[in-house]
Amino acid sequence: MAVRFAILGAGRIGQVHSRAVAETEGAKLVAIADPVAAAAEKVRDTYGCDIRTIDQIAKSKDVDAVIIGTPTDTHADLIEKFCRVGKAVFCEKPIDLSVQRVKDCLKVVEETKGTLMVGFNRRFDPDFRALKDAIDAGHIGKVEMGTITSRDPGAPPISYIERSGGIFRDMTIHDFDIARWILAEEVETVLATGSVLIDKAIGKAGDFDSVNVILRTKSGKQCTITNSRRASYGYDQRIEVHGSKGSVSVENIYESRITVAGKDGYSRPPLVNFFLERYMPAYKAEIAAFVKTVTEGTPPPTTGRDGLLALALAEAAVKSVAEGRVVKVSEIIG
Amino acid sequence: MAVRFAILGAGRIGQVHSRAVAETEGAKLVAIADPVAAAAEKVRDTYGCDIRTIDQIAKSKDVDAVIIGTPTDTHADLIEKFCRVGKAVFCEKPIDLSVQRVKDCLKVVEETKGTLMVGFNRRFDPDFRALKDAIDAGHIGKVEMGTITSRDPGAPPISYIERSGGIFRDMTIHDFDIARWILAEEVETVLATGSVLIDKAIGKAGDFDSVNVILRTKSGKQCTITNSRRASYGYDQRIEVHGSKGSVSVENIYESRITVAGKDGYSRPPLVNFFLERYMPAYKAEIAAFVKTVTEGTPPPTTGRDGLLALALAEAAVKSVAEGRVVKVSEIIG
Amino acid sequence: MAVRFAILGAGRIGQVHSRAVAETEGAKLVAIADPVAAAAEKVRDTYGCDIRTIDQIAKSKDVDAVIIGTPTDTHADLIEKFCRVGKAVFCEKPIDLSVQRVKDCLKVVEETKGTLMVGFNRRFDPDFRALKDAIDAGHIGKVEMGTITSRDPGAPPISYIERSGGIFRDMTIHDFDIARWILAEEVETVLATGSVLIDKAIGKAGDFDSVNVILRTKSGKQCTITNSRRASYGYDQRIEVHGSKGSVSVENIYESRITVAGKDGYSRPPLVNFFLERYMPAYKAEIAAFVKTVTEGTPPPTTGRDGLLALALAEAAVKSVAEGRVVKVSEIIG
Amino acid sequence: MAVRFAILGAGRIGQVHSRAVAETEGAKLVAIADPVAAAAEKVRDTYGCDIRTIDQIAKSKDVDAVIIGTPTDTHADLIEKFCRVGKAVFCEKPIDLSVQRVKDCLKVVEETKGTLMVGFNRRFDPDFRALKDAIDAGHIGKVEMGTITSRDPGAPPISYIERSGGIFRDMTIHDFDIARWILAEEVETVLATGSVLIDKAIGKAGDFDSVNVILRTKSGKQCTITNSRRASYGYDQRIEVHGSKGSVSVENIYESRITVAGKDGYSRPPLVNFFLERYMPAYKAEIAAFVKTVTEGTPPPTTGRDGLLALALAEAAVKSVAEGRVVKVSEIIG
Repeated sequence: MAVRFAILGAGRIGQVHSRAVAETEGAKLVAIADPVAAAAEKVRDTYGCDIRTIDQIAKSKDVDAVIIGTPTDTHADLIEKFCRVGKAVFCEKPIDLSVQRVKDCLKVVEETKGTLMVGFNRRFDPDFRALKDAIDAGHIGKVEMGTITSRDPGAPPISYIERSGGIFRDMTIHDFDIARWILAEEVETVLATGSVLIDKAIGKAGDFDSVNVILRTKSGKQCTITNSRRASYGYDQRIEVHGSKGSVSVENIYESRITVAGKDGYSRPPLVNFFLERYMPAYKAEIAAFVKTVTEGTPPPTTGRDGLLALALAEAAVKSVAEGRVVKVSEIIG
Repeated sequence: MAVRFAILGAGRIGQVHSRAVAETEGAKLVAIADPVAAAAEKVRDTYGCDIRTIDQIAKSKDVDAVIIGTPTDTHADLIEKFCRVGKAVFCEKPIDLSVQRVKDCLKVVEETKGTLMVGFNRRFDPDFRALKDAIDAGHIGKVEMGTITSRDPGAPPISYIERSGGIFRDMTIHDFDIARWILAEEVETVLATGSVLIDKAIGKAGDFDSVNVILRTKSGKQCTITNSRRASYGYDQRIEVHGSKGSVSVENIYESRITVAGKDGYSRPPLVNFFLERYMPAYKAEIAAFVKTVTEGTPPPTTGRDGLLALALAEAAVKSVAEGRVVKVSEIIG
Repeated sequence: MAVRFAILGAGRIGQVHSRAVAETEGAKLVAIADPVAAAAEKVRDTYGCDIRTIDQIAKSKDVDAVIIGTPTDTHADLIEKFCRVGKAVFCEKPIDLSVQRVKDCLKVVEETKGTLMVGFNRRFDPDFRALKDAIDAGHIGKVEMGTITSRDPGAPPISYIERSGGIFRDMTIHDFDIARWILAEEVETVLATGSVLIDKAIGKAGDFDSVNVILRTKSGKQCTITNSRRASYGYDQRIEVHGSKGSVSVENIYESRITVAGKDGYSRPPLVNFFLERYMPAYKAEIAAFVKTVTEGTPPPTTGRDGLLALALAEAAVKSVAEGRVVKVSEIIG
Repeated sequence: MAVRFAILGAGRIGQVHSRAVAETEGAKLVAIADPVAAAAEKVRDTYGCDIRTIDQIAKSKDVDAVIIGTPTDTHADLIEKFCRVGKAVFCEKPIDLSVQRVKDCLKVVEETKGTLMVGFNRRFDPDFRALKDAIDAGHIGKVEMGTITSRDPGAPPISYIERSGGIFRDMTIHDFDIARWILAEEVETVLATGSVLIDKAIGKAGDFDSVNVILRTKSGKQCTITNSRRASYGYDQRIEVHGSKGSVSVENIYESRITVAGKDGYSRPPLVNFFLERYMPAYKAEIAAFVKTVTEGTPPPTTGRDGLLALALAEAAVKSVAEGRVVKVSEIIG
């Protein structure tokens, strides 16, 4: 029997998940909810499902699972609401911008014995997955140092930055999760630097557009993260992990595999642009993993705790830049 | 209104086309036909369509177009049959192993003003398409010389080789079509060499497993084709085109984009294996192009004449090896 | 007229410089000095020069310039000695492990109007030079962030580490210099992390074997440096610079340009190993630049001040790790 | 004791060999001969040797070996002359443009028990050597098919083409030698195609500027060669060999190892341009191999017979184009 889905939010990410559900074996899209009628109708017309309100969905017997793709400040409430009515919940990161609110929410998930998977799509990217498999297979020995490069093609609107919690919470958070995943050991301390190099308006909004972070685990493993809000050459997404016996790295994805040679040299096209194109296979694999979780009752591959810890690293990074010092994760998370 | 499809043949290629139709906007799978009930049922159950006989399909008012994925020796008859009843026809290459039979068949298509698209999937591969676009955009100037490398991971069963018309007609035929496409000028002469290096049984079946071909157009453009029935490292599919101002080439597709470094060096995974995985995006784009042809009444991007000429080049290659000389295409095609 | 050289020290680096002088147009090797007779004789026999003592060289009228390749703790004294007798001086980095001693030494250079070039060979590597040229030509716009990866094939003996001043002073110092070069703006603050992951004996000697550093300039430019004392795959030397209009990176040097493909994938050989092989062209270009400096009376491309500032960054890094905080370079250098 | 060299011809290739001898351990440049005084003086002044006439050199007791870098039509006579006086001879390819003259010359070499090495520099290229080593180590199993791509940056003057014997004898001849080397089995038949695509004047001179060749050995191994007189992107020199267990290929050499990324994509510089730069390490290794041959009395790695067979393949290719048929090497060589 297919897992029957309702999707909350028909915006950009809601549409991505609609498509992912529609194309995933064992998943069925039953309902879409969005206060903007046109957005909901577009999903309905494309994939053939009902339009319902969130409250209707909470009461729908023909819905097994919900995907939360609404604005961030509604995530925690919705997770609690749907755990309480026994629906499996897939929620986009972050659960909330407040560490305390996230902790409270996860308590409710635990009390209700709810199923919560948090959307860290990159872990499901086939190439990143292959990197992780190579590490787990022992090809590079013991993991020692990671290098994560993540640059967006262009900065989001200032209005987004003002609400997003800033670069560490809206952008680096993906890299924090990837760092925890590849180090396979909890991060103990965080060092970070931030600059405004691209757009002064970003600085006026209290944020940075160019940051570097060094994470360190108890045993001394380290991981650097480099982020920029702008890369002329496309969506730059690379991981490299160095270990006792070797290293493994993942190449970027170019718009095509051609190379043109001429008198000025050899040229390849820019990188794919942007995350919908870059990570569509990851979004699909993510939903397939959630379907497996729901169907087989196994633990979700990315948990509420993963969401909490990535957020805590973001908060530690903010504090590190502000105070010019090493910040312990325990200062944030207790 | 969606184009309503029936697919003739539920074997490997029929299943590929079923999936392509199911996932293509503006296309709808109505019926599948196959004498093997289990095969037809599998398609029906996966994509939700009727099972009908070929004769039923010919009479079905709810079918606009057919995809012919039956054994080669039925292709020409089926093309004629469906053109006569006014269905648009997409037929897998080759139309027939006999040049004369193909010519007769195309005459019927012409007389009935039928729509016939022949399946040369590679032209629709996104990377090959990008190469062609770069040529058409003038990035390499005037095309002078092409180099096509095409190696299968492993040889097909001898039983297949015995019926396929041999390596030039079942394998090189794709490269002949690509050569005509990138040279953008008809081939005038063919030179070819063949060896049996992989499996003596292939030689006993009257075929080669390793061949090289040089094609030459009237204006002197040249294209080499290298084929092998076996490559330990996967499905090797490369094109390089050299022109007056530069060159353009297409890289292979690896199983993933990771590189593992260790004491023995840097290693990337093998190539994807085999054509279903390698060319699935091409098969989908091909069906989308056919849908556009049917919907808009535009000429098909790959025509019956393309099918005829690729076959003629194959026959010329066979003759060139046998007689140890340059063979003119006009000797074959009249 | 050729610049006439004496080389102080016939150890590994002295031999490199002997070869560089011998193969550089406009340079002539006149004398070698080393307390170990066998070492001096080897240079004499290979390149055909005199053996003299350091004092004899200081008095030699047929010597225009000296190359100091003796142990670090003799560098500053020798620089002063030879500046005082009017010889042009090329000294291997570092000038001294003490910032104060370096400052005192540079004062003597200034007072004597001496010519001092400090050996930062990497700036003369043809590929790194091409990267710098691309930056200077404006190809990446305004420099924003650098990423330097530098990993040795294996750790040096503990006895070396005990005298070297530690990883930041003996290894990262090269990267500090490269960072200053590519940022083209002085570093204001240093953040660093260190771990012992490879060999506990390194930790017992008071050093780290795996470090990460973040440098930041006044205008907010950043540069990360990743160092490891061990890389199974060879001598890993990469630079990447990201700017407002693009990025530029330098690939490693492999033992050869072959790729072998087989059932396990595609493999390239390890990286060249070690610095003598990797940087021989750089050592030669460095001597050629010194010859130009001496001949034309132009300022040396790498100065005593470059030596001082790279050392100060090393000291700041040591302090940053020890105190878990951002360290200003002004704290070190005054 | 060093091998004492005289070089006949102080033109471009003579200068290359002068430098190679000067920088090779165990070799000493004693004399240069050239009717053009300025050319001879330049070599004398750069490397410090005598200027002598060819006849003087033939009588010089302080000369052990000669390098023949004079015009092609003098090669055979000079080989015979110097073999008769007991000097070891290194001669640039080709020995002569006439197969018969080459055969006669080799007879004299044999009768005089002379030492003759023919200059096929590419076999000594470090990367090509690594490819050959990988083959010999069994990494690709049994060799089945080779692909050689060789394109010059630009066509030579028509005056050169008129005397050179044409593209197959002056350019492809290097590839014929490489093909014999990697196939490790004598070629039995030759198929070739030629076009004039770059410059009609080349056609008027009776030559082609764009050619493809297929070689076939008795056991069925094949090798294709692609040549063009012009490549906008530099000196294109690639080899790929496919075998029963895998393949090995050699990448080109770029002007530097940088990649610049920007809004139009990722770009690398053109290839090094031209053969002096591309193959200088090969020229040096070649002379080192000749020194070893002379010193140790071992057979030369590239023999007069290699020169004869490469020429025979060139002649077979000319015949194949002219007659539009497979040409057996035995038709040429008897």
